[in-house]
Amino acid sequence: MEPRKLFHELVDLREALRRIFEYVHPAPVGVEEVETSRALGRVLAEDVYAPIDYPPFDRSEVDGYAVKSASLVGAEEWNPVELRVVGSVGVGEEPRVEVVDGTAVEIATGAAMPRGADAVVMEEFCERRNGFVIVKRSVVPRENVHIAGTDIARGSLVLSRGTRIGFGEVAVLTALGIGSVKVFRKPRIAVFSTGNELVEPGEPLSRVGLVYDVNRFSVSSFLKSLGADPHPMGVLPDDVDVVAERVDEACKRFDMVVVSGGTSAGLGDVVYRALERLGKILFHGLKTKPGKPTLAAVVNSKLVLALPGFPFSAMCIALHLLKPVVEAMMGLATVEEPGVRATLVKRVWKPIDRSLFLPVVIKERGAEALAYPLPFRSGSVSPLILADGIALLEERSDYVDKGSRITVKLLRRPSRMLVVGSNDIALNTVLRDCGVLPLARVVSVGSTEGLRALAEGVADVAPTHLLDEETGVYNTPFLERMGLRGRAVLVKGWRRRLVLAYAPGNPKNIRGFEDLLREDVLFVNRNRGSGTRVFIDAQLRSLAKRLGMEFRELVKKVRGYELELPTHTAVAAAIAHGRADAGVCVEAAAAMYGLSYVELGWEEYDFAVSTDSLDNPAVRRFLEYLRDRGALRSSLSKFVGYEPHPRSGEVVWP
Amino acid sequence: MEPRKLFHELVDLREALRRIFEYVHPAPVGVEEVETSRALGRVLAEDVYAPIDYPPFDRSEVDGYAVKSASLVGAEEWNPVELRVVGSVGVGEEPRVEVVDGTAVEIATGAAMPRGADAVVMEEFCERRNGFVIVKRSVVPRENVHIAGTDIARGSLVLSRGTRIGFGEVAVLTALGIGSVKVFRKPRIAVFSTGNELVEPGEPLSRVGLVYDVNRFSVSSFLKSLGADPHPMGVLPDDVDVVAERVDEACKRFDMVVVSGGTSAGLGDVVYRALERLGKILFHGLKTKPGKPTLAAVVNSKLVLALPGFPFSAMCIALHLLKPVVEAMMGLATVEEPGVRATLVKRVWKPIDRSLFLPVVIKERGAEALAYPLPFRSGSVSPLILADGIALLEERSDYVDKGSRITVKLLRRPSRMLVVGSNDIALNTVLRDCGVLPLARVVSVGSTEGLRALAEGVADVAPTHLLDEETGVYNTPFLERMGLRGRAVLVKGWRRRLVLAYAPGNPKNIRGFEDLLREDVLFVNRNRGSGTRVFIDAQLRSLAKRLGMEFRELVKKVRGYELELPTHTAVAAAIAHGRADAGVCVEAAAAMYGLSYVELGWEEYDFAVSTDSLDNPAVRRFLEYLRDRGALRSSLSKFVGYEPHPRSGEVVWP
Repeated sequence: MEPRKLFHELVDLREALRRIFEYVHPAPVGVEEVETSRALGRVLAEDVYAPIDYPPFDRSEVDGYAVKSASLVGAEEWNPVELRVVGSVGVGEEPRVEVVDGTAVEIATGAAMPRGADAVVMEEFCERRNGFVIVKRSVVPRENVHIAGTDIARGSLVLSRGTRIGFGEVAVLTALGIGSVKVFRKPRIAVFSTGNELVEPGEPLSRVGLVYDVNRFSVSSFLKSLGADPHPMGVLPDDVDVVAERVDEACKRFDMVVVSGGTSAGLGDVVYRALERLGKILFHGLKTKPGKPTLAAVVNSKLVLALPGFPFSAMCIALHLLKPVVEAMMGLATVEEPGVRATLVKRVWKPIDRSLFLPVVIKERGAEALAYPLPFRSGSVSPLILADGIALLEERSDYVDKGSRITVKLLRRPSRMLVVGSNDIALNTVLRDCGVLPLARVVSVGSTEGLRALAEGVADVAPTHLLDEETGVYNTPFLERMGLRGRAVLVKGWRRRLVLAYAPGNPKNIRGFEDLLREDVLFVNRNRGSGTRVFIDAQLRSLAKRLGMEFRELVKKVRGYELELPTHTAVAAAIAHGRADAGVCVEAAAAMYGLSYVELGWEEYDFAVSTDSLDNPAVRRFLEYLRDRGALRSSLSKFVGYEPHPRSGEVVWP
Repeated sequence: MEPRKLFHELVDLREALRRIFEYVHPAPVGVEEVETSRALGRVLAEDVYAPIDYPPFDRSEVDGYAVKSASLVGAEEWNPVELRVVGSVGVGEEPRVEVVDGTAVEIATGAAMPRGADAVVMEEFCERRNGFVIVKRSVVPRENVHIAGTDIARGSLVLSRGTRIGFGEVAVLTALGIGSVKVFRKPRIAVFSTGNELVEPGEPLSRVGLVYDVNRFSVSSFLKSLGADPHPMGVLPDDVDVVAERVDEACKRFDMVVVSGGTSAGLGDVVYRALERLGKILFHGLKTKPGKPTLAAVVNSKLVLALPGFPFSAMCIALHLLKPVVEAMMGLATVEEPGVRATLVKRVWKPIDRSLFLPVVIKERGAEALAYPLPFRSGSVSPLILADGIALLEERSDYVDKGSRITVKLLRRPSRMLVVGSNDIALNTVLRDCGVLPLARVVSVGSTEGLRALAEGVADVAPTHLLDEETGVYNTPFLERMGLRGRAVLVKGWRRRLVLAYAPGNPKNIRGFEDLLREDVLFVNRNRGSGTRVFIDAQLRSLAKRLGMEFRELVKKVRGYELELPTHTAVAAAIAHGRADAGVCVEAAAAMYGLSYVELGWEEYDFAVSTDSLDNPAVRRFLEYLRDRGALRSSLSKFVGYEPHPRSGEVVWP
């Protein structure tokens, strides 16, 4: 193994951009002419002056009669004026008759005004009789006439270089008769991934340690969505010579090169060494979290940007560093996106010397936007589909307080129904079946944290399954304690069976909780705050009582009690992969991983619903579905050990 | 000419949509499988369940040493613990050693955890010595370890049918190893324009009455931006038989047909007659303004939507009626866009029985969004590039009051610098030259209205050239009268020469304003509120004084005094096209149209700037440019009769 290389001086995002712009001068890479009809999404490389007036001639805006307004002075319902109709002008026709006092010309919407006429009277106010028209209204000069050049004047600067061409720009260009435009050539960008661990999606992961390649595809898709021309180039091996050779070659063929992975300061920092050999390193390491292992270099006057390997980290840097560079290369006269201002609803801790990319979901409450931080780790990928946006929390503080106003770069439109709370395998399926899944966002943080999010006004719905040990009652005691009376109702959800799961065939002969005290049994626990953890502790407490022990004393004897996993499936997976011998999870998770188990009983999985959200159409549809016993049973039947509660969908509290 | 056909019962937008959904059932037209790497922008046709856990195995989140957390209990800076390093795991490697008490395994970010280890200590807290590592910190179980399946659990519903695939979805799909996905086939939509008046962009307009085809290109671009597959089909002639034949054929080959033009109830309602022959008319005529001549029919169970011919009208209907239908055909699980809530800053009149599509520009003032209505006519095309969005003002009121909250569908990001006021030929060029044009939006409404927009807090800058007749002073008296002291400053702009223009060679022998009293001279005036109109009236007033006449009496003798045009170029164009004999405009406009003229004097074109906007970077850059005499002179030199003012860029009031 090669020696480790630590990061050089870390730089902040602003300094990183400054160095890139100073040394690489990202700028358009060429100009080409395209037909206006094919120009959508392209960036104008020229200023466009109107070659003609628009409208090109005085034209009627209505169907009616072109007149001299002076002819109709005083015309009214009870004092109509009769004009002789001396001709007509249809759309596209060149007017051949002239209007004089006492005459009119029939005219269609969009037709050119005949000489002499200065107004059009709408046909609603006219009655045609033989060769005459009886007009029951006067008109003012220019009434219903669109004068040539008043919308766009010939010679005026209509669209400027750097404008992205949308359908509106296509409309204006074609209206002015401009059949083709000069646009900037799309920058061609080579996109590599790096690492021997990467497997092509669609192929199997043949052993532990391998992961699928993500960044080559997500970064290319991101570049394409910006309007650039990405070329996914394949995976580079962890080999400095090969990386150097292929990046060097790509720098000759493309306008820019993006690499990801292989940039960490740890084992095998191949990209750094390859780029150091090929050109000048601009920076190595960013003062951001995630995103530290980012690296930029100039090779043959081309920018090589090396992104972190973790997909979420890579996309954070792509959004904040790659995007402005690519937009400059596209020639886009960017108006920096201001982002959405939102109020952070819980304190967020961060490293004091680094800025933090924080994925959030947004809840709009009246005029206010609330930002709820998504739980994430640097290796997470789910924030890329769950987050409504990413906030960049600046350096020089070790936390950002609840109530702070933060700026969020939006990734997608905020959801209509925000579900924050306990994780459940069947929840997304039920939401899908009742048709609200596309409108909803589900954030799994555990029951207790979900109730807190509801109290903060962020969550519309908080799934919860907290068992009050003293009373044996689910959920309501907790809602009372959190002061949610009047602010939330509790709606019965469904029941799911908890099991004590162990390896298939039960090689360690586990029969119940007392076996967790054995030296040879490694337990895996659930996280504090989760309903299942409350259930586990209740079981252990009653076991302690039976054995005449203190609870504290007893749990010390449970090996692995301190090993907390956050979801049912994580528990089942840990047992299936041999990392633990026993754990408590829902039957459906145990069944999915082919585990053996003993049944422990039914747990009640309910929904606290904010009273503010009771008239939210998506929430209403969901609650109606819960009350439809047949439909709910059919959704739940896909999961072993799930069934409706006798009161599913009913408000059971307060 | 065929007889006119009036509209049948008009329907509102909601009813129009209801009928389309009832009779056509817009729905996805098929499913196809695409590689995930090429799926950007497509719509998922299947629910995607996670085939594997993510992360697929427990992995280290940092570079460091995998340990048993129990081995490091109590480890501190002054009480380090020494562990024997028994191996290493790189990224992509399958761990082959097990960690037991007292040992550690070197591990890289992203590498799989070796058996026995339950945490990773970061290398920052370690010191390597020969075969040992000295650790100066304890770790809690799971510290720096990302547990398999905790980000995405195997078997969970990750993405649902109807989701648009963005780069985030590509990331998640590839992370889960999903190499291809089922997506809905893009609906193939034939797009026709109709009308003998239409000319291809790029060709010349050979005579009066002809206009360029716009809708075929703008509607196709719009459909493409939605993600559909538009096929621009050409222009249909005003011939019922041909229209019927080609639409019928297109209904067989495509999933939907969009036609535009030829739908007015006036002369030549060919599309209506063709569709009546081919199938069932769903509605003919919408209660919207613009957009009334809209028509839908079912032909061979395919929808044929006929849009109005005017480009802005067509796009309003495309946005509000075509879009939801196409999105349903794309299988998109749409979250209806809520639009932006904004405060209307001036009263808008509308027909009581029709809803109004109102193009607006948006000014963000703190948390508030102000909506300023753009002046437009049904035949305008410029709102499609000027408007930040379109508000739909509902029926059943004949006006919407100033201060009302309205909902705006955004077309583009609001500008950074909103310029509302007097029109000037050189303004866009100066803004372009100082680099703020892409950040700015210029709305031409005349000086007086511009100052009002500034008083309302909407305009950052209001170009103005109002001459106070009594004092002969430009602009400042008007700012005083409007109470703008303390709320705005006046910055000197530039000077431009006004001329009395007439036909080339001066065939009517016009020498000055007294010639406007002649019977054979047709004058063309400027609109009330414009600075030039104030100038004209001042000239006529002094002429009246000289002749010993009343002003009112005098202007009655000026033929065409009541004919108002809104811009300098419109005046010049009217004279060039023989619609008038004389008019007042800037020299540059007269020169552009090759007119002859007499010089009248210099006009001062200044800029009222809101004090709130003085620290707006775009505004600052503009004001700096005005002070740079050489740069400004160079920009203005492109226009005849333009020059800097001796005090250009200086604050001259208050």
